[in-house]
Amino acid sequence: MILLNIDKEQHGDYLYQQIYQELKKKILERQFEAHEKLPPKRTLAKQLDVSINTITNAYEQLLAEGYIYAIERSGYYIEEITKFDKHRHVSRNFPEHLKEATENRNGWLSLSHMTADTALFPFKEWLKSERKAIENHQRDLAEINHPQGPYLVRETIAKFIGLSRGVACEPEQIVISAGTQPLMQQLMSIQPEDTTIAMESPGYSRIYTLLSQQLQMPVDLISLDDNGIDIEQVEKSAANFLFVTPSHHFPTGKIMPISRRIELLNWALKEEHRYIIEDDYDSEFKYETDNIPSLQSLDQHDRVIYFGTFSKSLLPTFRISYMVLPPKFLEKYQEKHADLIHYNNTLVLYTLHYFIQSGAYESHLKRMNHYYETKRNLLITELTNVFGDDIFIKDIPAGLHFVAKFNTNKTYEEVELATKELKLEIYSIKRFSLKNEYKHTENIELVIGFAIIKKEDIKEAVARLAKAIY
Amino acid sequence: MILLNIDKEQHGDYLYQQIYQELKKKILERQFEAHEKLPPKRTLAKQLDVSINTITNAYEQLLAEGYIYAIERSGYYIEEITKFDKHRHVSRNFPEHLKEATENRNGWLSLSHMTADTALFPFKEWLKSERKAIENHQRDLAEINHPQGPYLVRETIAKFIGLSRGVACEPEQIVISAGTQPLMQQLMSIQPEDTTIAMESPGYSRIYTLLSQQLQMPVDLISLDDNGIDIEQVEKSAANFLFVTPSHHFPTGKIMPISRRIELLNWALKEEHRYIIEDDYDSEFKYETDNIPSLQSLDQHDRVIYFGTFSKSLLPTFRISYMVLPPKFLEKYQEKHADLIHYNNTLVLYTLHYFIQSGAYESHLKRMNHYYETKRNLLITELTNVFGDDIFIKDIPAGLHFVAKFNTNKTYEEVELATKELKLEIYSIKRFSLKNEYKHTENIELVIGFAIIKKEDIKEAVARLAKAIY
Repeated sequence: MILLNIDKEQHGDYLYQQIYQELKKKILERQFEAHEKLPPKRTLAKQLDVSINTITNAYEQLLAEGYIYAIERSGYYIEEITKFDKHRHVSRNFPEHLKEATENRNGWLSLSHMTADTALFPFKEWLKSERKAIENHQRDLAEINHPQGPYLVRETIAKFIGLSRGVACEPEQIVISAGTQPLMQQLMSIQPEDTTIAMESPGYSRIYTLLSQQLQMPVDLISLDDNGIDIEQVEKSAANFLFVTPSHHFPTGKIMPISRRIELLNWALKEEHRYIIEDDYDSEFKYETDNIPSLQSLDQHDRVIYFGTFSKSLLPTFRISYMVLPPKFLEKYQEKHADLIHYNNTLVLYTLHYFIQSGAYESHLKRMNHYYETKRNLLITELTNVFGDDIFIKDIPAGLHFVAKFNTNKTYEEVELATKELKLEIYSIKRFSLKNEYKHTENIELVIGFAIIKKEDIKEAVARLAKAIY
Repeated sequence: MILLNIDKEQHGDYLYQQIYQELKKKILERQFEAHEKLPPKRTLAKQLDVSINTITNAYEQLLAEGYIYAIERSGYYIEEITKFDKHRHVSRNFPEHLKEATENRNGWLSLSHMTADTALFPFKEWLKSERKAIENHQRDLAEINHPQGPYLVRETIAKFIGLSRGVACEPEQIVISAGTQPLMQQLMSIQPEDTTIAMESPGYSRIYTLLSQQLQMPVDLISLDDNGIDIEQVEKSAANFLFVTPSHHFPTGKIMPISRRIELLNWALKEEHRYIIEDDYDSEFKYETDNIPSLQSLDQHDRVIYFGTFSKSLLPTFRISYMVLPPKFLEKYQEKHADLIHYNNTLVLYTLHYFIQSGAYESHLKRMNHYYETKRNLLITELTNVFGDDIFIKDIPAGLHFVAKFNTNKTYEEVELATKELKLEIYSIKRFSLKNEYKHTENIELVIGFAIIKKEDIKEAVARLAKAIY
């Protein structure tokens, strides 16, 4: 007879689970011999005064997990089960120092460049587009999608960037993914082993980390002159890929003039495998003048790979970016990524499709352009009022951030520490100084984002900045 | 005097754009000398009979793009612009053979294992959860998220898999990403150079491609015996990582019994850096008995890395998966991925949080379990009726697919071709035969998914299959 500890006050499912758990424990503790016969269901049911069904459920679960086996017309037997190796006891207590502190953001103000504003985001329109997507794409939602993203969505993006950025491409050339990082990784994975890349410094530090550390590629860092990436250094570099941000240099904000653009395109044509990656991350926002046409639109020889994103124009947390591959890269891309399951949520992508198609996206852009322009002007006015001769703002009316130079005796580290203590989120240009070219020399440069700060908080944010700088 | 071709019938913005475009064209065609002075705004306005404002707008845009420069109190001058290098003309026509054919899925039926059913998906509840997410997380939506995903969502997942799968973990250990592929890539990126991995064959071919081709790692393919991955081959292998699917082997459906589980855990403990990746891809669906507890729940020494996904339980196109890292991997992970921007849409993740919290997820799982069980039974009955002695179904009541063996003279290739012609989507086990162990020997094995087929289509699907097999 087996002794089982069961509590009959618990009914239904719970009774069979108790019996199953008790038997399982005894088997693992080797209280049975291997191949020992279990009591017939009827006997155990009688002994425990439960229904045969209850015993059947418990035995079936043990059977499914391999604790016992059954012989037809004979009964149930204990499996031969390997013993757990004994090892010194390892505490499963989670190490205290790895606990994530719950960040208290109360009272913080942000002049971070990495944000967008949700205050005017047309969530209602977004949900409307989502309902349309649900209605029309049930089948597409049930199945794994094309590695480059749904054709319909690529078609909509191709049309849109054709009109807004002069980008000439077919939907076939578009690869949608969850950010510039996976796109870059995918693009580099189809290049020959000896590929070398050059990029701007100061520049996009996350891409530098990805290329140099994750992908372990040789990366040439190139300084800027007045026209953007220094063409003489580019010519001298062994790189055959260039990563640039011509529409609004990240982070200095410079717009690359037409002459440098032509010089870069001419550089690409000088050798057979030279390419330019154009990261067009925030070109939707241009104040005072129209948008600057993309570099890709000037390229007649398929040497530019255009990178676009909805991170600034929608929300950074939506994670929708795309690249436009030259046709000659397509076959290689598709071969290499045939087994890749697309990273984006298909429902979100179809939602985006209807959001663009309905005109909601363009209205949103118009509204945000006006809204950001107002905030930008207010912030610049306030900064000028407070800092006077001690500030020089590189005032390029584009994007969601600008760089300002401050006269101060304080070092970068001191200002960073002070802003933190004053609960002001702001980043200095040192973060993007990939060659460590920024040392303190009577002034420091800060990257000032104006996307998320509220109009009514601008005065207070600038006041905190003044406290940190002086 | 400059001759400009403008059409005054177009008003407003269009007029200045015409002037801008015309001037731009002339500058690029070198009809001006470098440093040539442009006519004063007033003169040109008079000449063209337009407002000075129109000319100002055109000049400002040319200035922003670097076609001209301004000298204060003097006027506007043509920039010195590099000439485009002449190259042989490249046609920008998109190559015909790269065009994606629009697939016509009309009339197709699917027994694919890669699907889920949207018919009962509670989109209404999902949208309700999304509205809650929008209401409560505006700030989180505006800023780049934690590389592992929002803490709140990780907390909810940790709680859920604690209850449903016995997985013991803290939210800190959870990494959310857009599928098993990026998770595997991230996990492998923090392992030493000499890491070798072993996996089941037949097995998950996409993971095999990722490991062997993309990551170029040595991969040991291990056969299955009656209890799952062959422990003797595992012991002989030089691998220190094992990738297994113990709850429902992919694709054969086998459930790894407790004794093999213990053997694997014992194997891991024999050397210091041995780990087991448990891919628990469809354990939510278990018919007749309860769920099988996870391998991670048996592990007392942090040697199991648990992989979970919402691809089967929600929809494959939602792209939400996660892994549970042993605490000792955490610091390395965070250091290596400090610059990684999370791949998932934060709004979707918070939506998931409320979807689980409200109980909608559990209700959905219950409903789907019942629904899939019914379809599964109908399909098995129909297959048995039609194929009789010519079919052997490996009938493990779990997951969203099973494997069936058919007696037939036809080869794998012939059956695959025939099903295609009959518009029946179905995959053979050859696709997962990583060691090419499946040759035709009087029978063939097919992986039969029952998630997406409609009840009323089962008869027709099996009829098509019979036509293809006989």
